[in-house]
Amino acid sequence: MSKSLVFGHQNPDTDAIGAAIAFAHLQNQLGHEAEAVALGTPNEETQFALDTFGLTAPRVIETVANEVENVMLVDHNEFQQSVADIQEVNILAVVDHHRIANFETANPLYYRAEPVGCTSTIVLKLYKENQIVIPKEIAGMMLSAIISDTLLLKSPTCTKEDIAAAQELAGLANVDLEQYGLDLLKAGTNLADKTVEVLVDLDAKSFPMGDKTVRIAQVNTVDINELFERQVELEKTMAVMNEEQGFDLFVLVVTDILENNSEILVVGDVTTPVEKAFSVTLENNRAFLPGVVSRKKQVVPQLTAAFQ
Amino acid sequence: MSKSLVFGHQNPDTDAIGAAIAFAHLQNQLGHEAEAVALGTPNEETQFALDTFGLTAPRVIETVANEVENVMLVDHNEFQQSVADIQEVNILAVVDHHRIANFETANPLYYRAEPVGCTSTIVLKLYKENQIVIPKEIAGMMLSAIISDTLLLKSPTCTKEDIAAAQELAGLANVDLEQYGLDLLKAGTNLADKTVEVLVDLDAKSFPMGDKTVRIAQVNTVDINELFERQVELEKTMAVMNEEQGFDLFVLVVTDILENNSEILVVGDVTTPVEKAFSVTLENNRAFLPGVVSRKKQVVPQLTAAFQ
Repeated sequence: MSKSLVFGHQNPDTDAIGAAIAFAHLQNQLGHEAEAVALGTPNEETQFALDTFGLTAPRVIETVANEVENVMLVDHNEFQQSVADIQEVNILAVVDHHRIANFETANPLYYRAEPVGCTSTIVLKLYKENQIVIPKEIAGMMLSAIISDTLLLKSPTCTKEDIAAAQELAGLANVDLEQYGLDLLKAGTNLADKTVEVLVDLDAKSFPMGDKTVRIAQVNTVDINELFERQVELEKTMAVMNEEQGFDLFVLVVTDILENNSEILVVGDVTTPVEKAFSVTLENNRAFLPGVVSRKKQVVPQLTAAFQ
Repeated sequence: MSKSLVFGHQNPDTDAIGAAIAFAHLQNQLGHEAEAVALGTPNEETQFALDTFGLTAPRVIETVANEVENVMLVDHNEFQQSVADIQEVNILAVVDHHRIANFETANPLYYRAEPVGCTSTIVLKLYKENQIVIPKEIAGMMLSAIISDTLLLKSPTCTKEDIAAAQELAGLANVDLEQYGLDLLKAGTNLADKTVEVLVDLDAKSFPMGDKTVRIAQVNTVDINELFERQVELEKTMAVMNEEQGFDLFVLVVTDILENNSEILVVGDVTTPVEKAFSVTLENNRAFLPGVVSRKKQVVPQLTAAFQ
C-alpha cells in the first residue's frame, strides 16, 4: 500500500502534532509507510516540546489529495476541523478522543476512540498492543501532549489512564513530570507579544450546533486580566472573523492554568444559548466560569445542548 | 452508572444478535450493567445458533429512551439502521466493522471499529484485552456470527483475524468449525416457506447514496433459481416498499453460499448507477455478479461511488 499522511486538526496543539508523530512512527514500525504532517505550524508550547526532545516540526500541508490516496487522522474527526480536501481521500484510520460528528467514510476503517483526556494516551495503548518500543523522543512528545490536553493532569477530562500514561511516558522520556509539565505549560502562555488576530486563532475550532456554526477558541494564561486589557481589540477581530468566515457566534475561552478557572468573551448575535449553557449573565460580553478548563468537556457539550 | 441497552442493527443477523449478547456479557463482567436486546426477532440461522448453544433470543425493543439514558451499539452505526429514537439517548460505545456514516454524538465515546469481517472478531479482542473468560455458549454465538458474516470464511471481507478468531471460538464452543458452519448456513437458506414480503425484508438495510436512499436486501440460498421463480411477486413487493417507505431504489442480492456468486434483482427508477457500479447490463431487471458475496465490500462501496 502507498504512503499515508497522518495528521491532527487545524490550528494544531501539542496533541495534534505529538499524536501524529507517534502514530506515524508506530505505523512505520508495523510496516505501513506513513508520514506525520500538520495543518499548521506548531504553537510555542508545542515548539518547546519539539525543541526539548530534539525533533523537527512536521511539514505543513494544505491539501492531501495532490500527494496521497490514503490518510490517517489523529485527535479529530470532524471534517470542518480537518484538511480542506479530506473528502477526496480514503480515511484508513482515526485515533481520537472527541465526540464524532460531521464525519463519514465510504469504506470500513480502523477507528479507535476512547473517552480519555488525550489522543496520545490511546496511542500509547496501541504501541503496547502491538509490542512496539517507544523511542525516548517520541515518548517525550506523547507526554507533552498529555500534559497539554489535561493541563498537567488537572482537567476534568483527565482519566486514570491519562495519569498512568503520563507517569510511564515521563519515565521513558527521562524527565520529571511536574517540573517539565510546568515548564511546558508556561511556554504556551506567552501572549503579550502576539497580535489579537493570532490569539483568537491559536487554538480555535468550529462546531456545528443546531443550525449555527460556533467558533470556540481557547488560550491558556497565568494572568487572565493581562489578556482582557485588549478586550476591545479582541472583540473587533472576533466580529470581523464572524463576518468573513460565517460564524454565528465566537466564544473565546481564556483559561488560567494555575487557578484552573476560565473567563469567556462572547461575540455574535446569538448569545442567549451561552447564558443558558453556563447559567450566567454576560456582562460586558464576558462571564467568569469557575472550575472550567476543558473546552471538550465543560464547554462544547453544554453549548451544543443549549443550541438544540 | 445506570443500565445500558446493547443492540445491533434493524433486521438483526447473527452478528447483530451474537455481538450484542457477547458485548453485554463483557460489560457485565467489567462491572457495567448492560442488557443485550434486539431490533427484531432472530432469523432462522440465528435461531439455530441460539438453540444449539442453549440461549434465548434477546428481548425485542422498538424504542430505548423510554427505559434507559445510555446505549451501546454493535455491528452498525448509521442512525437509519438503528433504533428509531437513537438521537434521544447517549451513545456510550460502538463496536463495529462497517463504514461510518450518518452517525454523530454530543459527547466523547468509546468507538472501536476495525476493517475485519465480523463484529464478534473485535469483541473477542476486547475479551482478551480485558482478560475476561468467554463462556462456552457465548463463544458459540460469536463463532456463529463470524461464520454468518464471512460465509464460513469464504467472503472477501474475511481477514486472517476472523479465521484465527473462528478457530479459537470453535475450540471454546467445542464444535467442529466446518460441520457446524455448513449446518448453520443451511439453516438460514430455507426460503421456500417464506412470503416475498418476509424475504425482501429479512436482511435489508437502507443506505443514503448521493441524494438517494437505496435499500439493499440480501438472502442466502443454495439454489438461486428457486428464488427467482417468484420474481414477478418479488418485484411487485419491492415496488410497493419503494413507494411506501420512500426508497429510490431496491436491490435484492441473492447469494449462492455454495458457489459464492450472486444474482441481483433491481426495482426502482434510477437503475443506471447499478449498471455502472457492476459493469453489467440489467436484463429483465436482473444481473449475475460472479464472485460477489459481500454486500459491504462488493456492493455498497461500488454503488455509493456510482451514485456520486
